[in-house]
Amino acid sequence: MMQKDTRRIEKHIAMIFRVGQKYFARQLRPWDVGAGMHPFLIELGRTPGISQDELSMVMHVDKGTTARAVKKLIEQGFVSREVNPEDRRAYRLYLTSRGREVIPVIFSSISGWQDILLNGIEPSQREVIIEGLNRMLDNALDFFGKDPRREKGWLEEDREDCPGSIK
Amino acid sequence: MMQKDTRRIEKHIAMIFRVGQKYFARQLRPWDVGAGMHPFLIELGRTPGISQDELSMVMHVDKGTTARAVKKLIEQGFVSREVNPEDRRAYRLYLTSRGREVIPVIFSSISGWQDILLNGIEPSQREVIIEGLNRMLDNALDFFGKDPRREKGWLEEDREDCPGSIK
Repeated sequence: MMQKDTRRIEKHIAMIFRVGQKYFARQLRPWDVGAGMHPFLIELGRTPGISQDELSMVMHVDKGTTARAVKKLIEQGFVSREVNPEDRRAYRLYLTSRGREVIPVIFSSISGWQDILLNGIEPSQREVIIEGLNRMLDNALDFFGKDPRREKGWLEEDREDCPGSIK
Repeated sequence: MMQKDTRRIEKHIAMIFRVGQKYFARQLRPWDVGAGMHPFLIELGRTPGISQDELSMVMHVDKGTTARAVKKLIEQGFVSREVNPEDRRAYRLYLTSRGREVIPVIFSSISGWQDILLNGIEPSQREVIIEGLNRMLDNALDFFGKDPRREKGWLEEDREDCPGSIK
């Protein structure tokens, strides 16, 4: 059962992800946004007051990684936290003004990266690829039984208009 | 310039990657292959005698991450290292028999994950998606100027027949 490695989409997704991490690290270095941090900032900008556990869930990142990312973003002055009056053990997370300032820079980098990735791909093919990625993500989330974003109506919200998407 | 978040392919790729990490961690736990370890094992199986630096390059992973992964894989008995007679400061890395035994399990998990991702996607669309991922990876690597695999003829080798790819 030998098959072409060009067909290993799991590998391609991992490689595109990793090279993308390099790209964002380089692009966002002047703003002190470290590798892997920009998705946290986007999510915090989208859902002000989110808790750390909720952030872990919507991003499908383990709690330890989220905790380290949030700690760093607070130390760097991008994020602030406030005690949740309804649950004093939980914190609500918000972007600071510095955090909000960096969001357009992040979306601009995302837009630039997507232009690089899609270079030379015909518009009709782009549509199929984008639809395919949407379907693959739905399939992946469905496999894990429940999607916290969908349960809380966040999946749809998540799919509303937002800046920084591809043309 | 507000656009659909469904069109943020960078985000979809990151999310599919992360949910995939969860899947592989769960599938490979009985074999003690930790999260993120399986791509290292595949690469080591494909290029016996590779050095740690080369491994970093071909996987587009920073050297620290590669060093930690290799250290763990050696401790776990999946990988052995030998002094390179041409450069005594460098080591050549090999899979142990235990490492070789786990490779078919990894490819079977990859195959299962790709079946999940592609569920409900028509064969003609699959072709466009797979071609698109290949092109996007080429574009991403081209942006960084040089691809160590291509320089050493590894990109083509990498794309030869191998097990575990999608149908």
